[in-house]
Amino acid sequence: MTVDTTIVNDPDTLAEVTAMFRRYEQALMANDTAALTAMFWASPHTLRYGVGEILYGHAEIAAFRANRAGGAPRRVLGKTSITTFGRDFGVANTEFQRANTDRLGRQSQTWVRFPEGWRIVSAHVSLLGETS
Amino acid sequence: MTVDTTIVNDPDTLAEVTAMFRRYEQALMANDTAALTAMFWASPHTLRYGVGEILYGHAEIAAFRANRAGGAPRRVLGKTSITTFGRDFGVANTEFQRANTDRLGRQSQTWVRFPEGWRIVSAHVSLLGETS
Repeated sequence: MTVDTTIVNDPDTLAEVTAMFRRYEQALMANDTAALTAMFWASPHTLRYGVGEILYGHAEIAAFRANRAGGAPRRVLGKTSITTFGRDFGVANTEFQRANTDRLGRQSQTWVRFPEGWRIVSAHVSLLGETS
Repeated sequence: MTVDTTIVNDPDTLAEVTAMFRRYEQALMANDTAALTAMFWASPHTLRYGVGEILYGHAEIAAFRANRAGGAPRRVLGKTSITTFGRDFGVANTEFQRANTDRLGRQSQTWVRFPEGWRIVSAHVSLLGETS
Protein backbone atom coordinates (compact mmCIF):
# COMPACT_ATOMS: atom_id res chain seq x y z
CA MET A 1 0.00 0.00 0.00
CA THR A 2 1.24 3.42 -0.90
CA VAL A 3 0.79 6.34 1.44
CA ASP A 4 -0.40 9.52 -0.17
CA THR A 5 2.82 11.47 -0.35
CA THR A 6 0.99 14.18 -2.24
CA ILE A 7 -0.17 15.34 1.18
CA VAL A 8 2.55 17.93 1.63
CA ASN A 9 2.55 20.10 4.73
CA ASP A 10 -0.63 18.81 6.26
CA PRO A 11 -1.17 21.52 8.91
CA ASP A 12 -1.34 19.16 11.90
CA THR A 13 1.71 17.20 10.80
CA LEU A 14 3.68 20.33 10.06
CA ALA A 15 2.78 21.71 13.49
CA GLU A 16 3.98 18.51 15.15
CA VAL A 17 7.33 18.40 13.38
CA THR A 18 7.82 22.11 13.97
CA ALA A 19 7.19 21.57 17.68
CA MET A 20 9.75 18.76 17.75
CA PHE A 21 12.28 20.91 15.91
CA ARG A 22 11.85 23.67 18.49
CA ARG A 23 12.04 21.22 21.36
CA TYR A 24 15.32 19.95 19.98
CA GLU A 25 16.77 23.45 19.82
CA GLN A 26 15.70 24.17 23.39
CA ALA A 27 17.27 20.94 24.59
CA LEU A 28 20.46 21.69 22.64
CA MET A 29 20.85 25.13 24.18
CA ALA A 30 20.04 23.75 27.64
CA ASN A 31 22.49 20.88 27.04
CA ASP A 32 19.72 18.53 28.11
CA THR A 33 21.53 15.45 26.86
CA ALA A 34 18.80 13.06 27.98
CA ALA A 35 16.18 14.92 25.97
CA LEU A 36 18.46 15.20 22.94
CA THR A 37 19.30 11.52 23.00
CA ALA A 38 15.65 10.56 23.41
CA MET A 39 14.74 12.48 20.26
CA PHE A 40 16.90 10.21 18.13
CA TRP A 41 15.42 6.91 16.98
CA ALA A 42 16.67 4.12 19.25
CA SER A 43 18.20 2.07 16.44
CA PRO A 44 21.58 1.08 15.08
CA HIS A 45 20.38 2.56 11.76
CA THR A 46 20.21 6.07 13.21
CA LEU A 47 22.98 8.32 11.99
CA ARG A 48 24.32 11.79 12.78
CA TYR A 49 26.96 13.57 10.75
CA GLY A 50 28.11 16.42 13.00
CA VAL A 51 30.39 19.35 12.20
CA GLY A 52 33.39 17.38 13.40
CA GLU A 53 32.13 13.85 14.00
CA ILE A 54 30.44 10.91 12.30
CA LEU A 55 28.16 8.88 14.56
CA TYR A 56 26.56 5.57 13.62
CA GLY A 57 23.73 4.23 15.73
CA HIS A 58 21.88 5.55 18.74
CA ALA A 59 24.59 4.37 21.15
CA GLU A 60 27.32 6.46 19.49
CA ILE A 61 25.04 9.50 19.44
CA ALA A 62 24.25 9.08 23.14
CA ALA A 63 27.94 8.68 24.01
CA PHE A 64 28.84 11.81 22.04
CA ARG A 65 26.26 13.86 23.95
CA ALA A 66 27.39 12.51 27.29
CA ASN A 67 31.02 13.38 26.56
CA ARG A 68 30.49 16.81 24.98
CA ALA A 69 31.74 19.06 27.76
CA GLY A 70 29.64 22.20 27.98
CA GLY A 71 27.34 21.06 25.21
CA ALA A 72 26.96 22.64 21.78
CA PRO A 73 28.30 26.13 21.04
CA ARG A 74 25.79 28.97 21.53
CA ARG A 75 23.98 29.70 18.30
CA VAL A 76 21.12 31.68 16.80
CA LEU A 77 18.91 30.10 14.16
CA GLY A 78 18.43 31.70 10.74
CA LYS A 79 16.26 30.71 7.82
CA THR A 80 14.34 27.53 8.61
CA SER A 81 12.50 25.22 6.23
CA ILE A 82 10.27 22.40 7.47
CA THR A 83 8.32 20.20 5.07
CA THR A 84 6.18 17.15 5.83
CA PHE A 85 4.99 14.29 3.60
CA GLY A 86 1.93 12.28 4.49
CA ARG A 87 1.37 12.21 8.25
CA ASP A 88 4.51 10.46 9.47
CA PHE A 89 7.50 12.00 7.73
CA GLY A 90 9.20 15.33 7.63
CA VAL A 91 12.45 17.16 7.00
CA ALA A 92 13.59 20.10 9.12
CA ASN A 93 16.41 22.27 7.83
CA THR A 94 17.83 25.41 9.36
CA GLU A 95 20.70 27.81 9.00
CA PHE A 96 22.42 28.96 12.17
CA GLN A 97 25.12 31.32 13.33
CA ARG A 98 27.42 30.05 16.06
CA ALA A 99 28.86 32.50 18.53
CA ASN A 100 32.38 31.12 18.04
CA THR A 101 32.70 31.39 14.25
CA ASP A 102 31.71 33.64 11.36
CA ARG A 103 30.97 30.62 9.19
CA LEU A 104 27.30 29.95 8.59
CA GLY A 105 25.97 26.66 9.92
CA ARG A 106 23.38 24.31 8.46
CA GLN A 107 21.41 21.60 10.26
CA SER A 108 19.29 18.93 8.56
CA GLN A 109 17.03 16.46 10.34
CA THR A 110 14.75 13.76 8.95
CA TRP A 111 11.89 12.99 11.31
CA VAL A 112 9.72 9.85 11.32
CA ARG A 113 6.65 9.17 13.47
CA PHE A 114 7.01 5.81 15.21
CA PRO A 115 4.56 4.20 17.64
CA GLU A 116 6.69 5.76 20.42
CA GLY A 117 6.50 9.23 18.83
CA TRP A 118 8.46 11.46 16.45
CA ARG A 119 12.15 10.61 16.23
CA ILE A 120 15.14 11.80 14.20
CA VAL A 121 16.40 9.00 11.96
CA SER A 122 19.14 10.99 10.24
CA ALA A 123 20.88 14.29 11.01
CA HIS A 124 23.61 16.31 9.35
CA VAL A 125 25.24 19.46 10.72
CA SER A 126 27.99 21.40 9.00
CA LEU A 127 29.56 24.79 8.49
CA LEU A 128 29.44 26.36 5.05
CA GLY A 129 32.75 25.96 3.22
CA GLU A 130 34.64 28.29 0.93
CA THR A 131 34.39 26.02 -2.13
CA SER A 132 31.62 23.92 -3.59
CA MET B 1 -4.49 7.28 8.79
CA THR B 2 -1.05 6.38 9.93
CA VAL B 3 1.33 4.50 7.68
CA ASP B 4 3.13 1.63 9.32
CA THR B 5 6.52 3.15 9.93
CA THR B 6 7.53 0.00 11.74
CA ILE B 7 8.19 -1.39 8.26
CA VAL B 8 11.88 -0.60 8.22
CA ASN B 9 13.99 -1.66 5.28
CA ASP B 10 11.31 -3.48 3.36
CA PRO B 11 13.50 -5.30 0.81
CA ASP B 12 11.77 -3.94 -2.30
CA THR B 13 11.75 -0.38 -1.01
CA LEU B 14 15.35 -0.58 0.11
CA ALA B 15 16.35 -1.89 -3.31
CA GLU B 16 14.55 0.97 -5.02
CA VAL B 17 16.14 3.70 -2.92
CA THR B 18 19.54 2.05 -3.25
CA ALA B 19 19.12 2.02 -7.02
CA MET B 20 18.24 5.73 -6.99
CA PHE B 21 21.23 6.50 -4.79
CA ARG B 22 23.53 4.72 -7.25
CA ARG B 23 21.93 6.41 -10.23
CA TYR B 24 22.56 9.76 -8.58
CA GLU B 25 26.24 8.97 -8.08
CA GLN B 26 26.61 7.87 -11.68
CA ALA B 27 24.95 11.06 -12.90
CA LEU B 28 27.14 13.15 -10.60
CA MET B 29 30.35 11.60 -11.90
CA ALA B 30 29.12 11.91 -15.49
CA ASN B 31 28.07 15.52 -14.82
CA ASP B 32 24.69 14.63 -16.27
CA THR B 33 23.04 17.78 -15.01
CA ALA B 34 19.66 16.97 -16.53
CA ALA B 35 19.52 13.64 -14.70
CA LEU B 36 20.72 15.20 -11.44
CA THR B 37 18.17 17.97 -11.61
CA ALA B 38 15.38 15.53 -12.44
CA MET B 39 16.13 13.53 -9.30
CA PHE B 40 15.24 16.48 -7.10
CA TRP B 41 11.60 17.06 -6.29
CA ALA B 42 10.23 19.79 -8.56
CA SER B 43 9.10 22.05 -5.75
CA PRO B 44 10.04 25.34 -4.10
CA HIS B 45 10.25 23.33 -0.84
CA THR B 46 13.19 21.27 -2.10
CA LEU B 47 16.48 22.21 -0.49
CA ARG B 48 20.15 21.40 -0.95
CA TYR B 49 22.89 22.45 1.44
CA GLY B 50 26.11 21.90 -0.52
CA VAL B 51 29.70 22.06 0.65
CA GLY B 52 29.90 25.71 -0.35
CA GLU B 53 26.36 26.72 -1.25
CA ILE B 54 22.81 26.90 0.09
CA LEU B 55 20.09 26.30 -2.49
CA TYR B 56 16.38 26.80 -1.89
CA GLY B 57 13.90 25.34 -4.34
CA HIS B 58 14.26 23.24 -7.46
CA ALA B 59 15.06 26.27 -9.64
CA GLU B 60 18.12 27.25 -7.59
CA ILE B 61 19.35 23.65 -7.62
CA ALA B 62 18.95 23.43 -11.40
CA ALA B 63 20.77 26.75 -11.89
CA PHE B 64 23.65 25.60 -9.68
CA ARG B 65 24.08 22.42 -11.73
CA ALA B 66 23.96 24.31 -15.01
CA ASN B 67 26.63 26.75 -13.85
CA ARG B 68 28.98 24.28 -12.17
CA ALA B 69 31.81 24.19 -14.68
CA GLY B 70 33.24 20.71 -14.95
CA GLY B 71 30.75 19.28 -12.46
CA ALA B 72 31.47 17.93 -9.00
CA PRO B 73 35.02 17.00 -7.95
CA ARG B 74 36.00 13.36 -8.55
CA ARG B 75 35.23 11.27 -5.49
CA VAL B 76 35.11 7.73 -4.19
CA LEU B 77 32.32 6.65 -1.90
CA GLY B 78 33.01 5.17 1.52
CA LYS B 79 30.70 3.79 4.18
CA THR B 80 27.09 4.06 3.02
CA SER B 81 23.90 3.73 5.07
CA ILE B 82 20.48 3.55 3.46
CA THR B 83 17.32 3.07 5.52
CA THR B 84 13.70 3.06 4.39
CA PHE B 85 10.46 3.57 6.33
CA GLY B 86 7.19 2.25 5.02
CA ARG B 87 7.22 2.05 1.23
CA ASP B 88 7.63 5.68 0.26
CA PHE B 89 10.41 7.17 2.38
CA GLY B 90 14.09 6.66 2.81
CA VAL B 91 17.34 8.28 3.87
CA ALA B 92 20.61 7.66 2.05
CA ASN B 93 23.84 8.69 3.72
CA THR B 94 27.37 8.16 2.52
CA GLU B 95 30.91 9.14 3.30
CA PHE B 96 33.14 10.08 0.38
CA GLN B 97 36.70 11.02 -0.36
CA ARG B 98 37.25 13.77 -2.90
CA ALA B 99 40.32 13.71 -5.07
CA ASN B 100 41.08 17.35 -4.31
CA THR B 101 41.10 17.26 -0.50
CA ASP B 102 42.11 15.02 2.39
CA ARG B 103 38.99 16.01 4.32
CA LEU B 104 36.33 13.33 4.50
CA GLY B 105 33.01 14.18 2.86
CA ARG B 106 29.49 13.30 3.92
CA GLN B 107 26.34 13.32 1.79
CA SER B 108 22.79 12.98 3.12
CA GLN B 109 19.66 12.62 0.99
CA THR B 110 16.03 12.20 1.99
CA TRP B 111 14.03 10.40 -0.70
CA VAL B 112 10.23 10.40 -1.10
CA ARG B 113 8.19 8.39 -3.58
CA PHE B 114 5.79 10.68 -5.44
CA PRO B 115 3.34 9.70 -8.20
CA GLU B 116 6.10 10.71 -10.66
CA GLY B 117 8.70 8.53 -8.92
CA TRP B 118 11.37 8.74 -6.24
CA ARG B 119 12.72 12.24 -5.68
CA ILE B 120 15.17 13.91 -3.29
CA VAL B 121 13.34 16.40 -1.09
CA SER B 122 16.34 17.45 1.00
CA ALA B 123 20.10 17.05 0.59
CA HIS B 124 23.13 18.06 2.63
CA VAL B 125 26.76 17.69 1.60
CA SER B 126 29.73 18.77 3.70
CA LEU B 127 33.34 18.11 4.55
CA LEU B 128 34.21 16.93 8.03
CA GLY B 129 35.53 19.80 10.17
CA GLU B 130 38.26 19.93 12.75
CA THR B 131 35.98 20.82 15.66
CA SER B 132 32.55 19.64 16.71
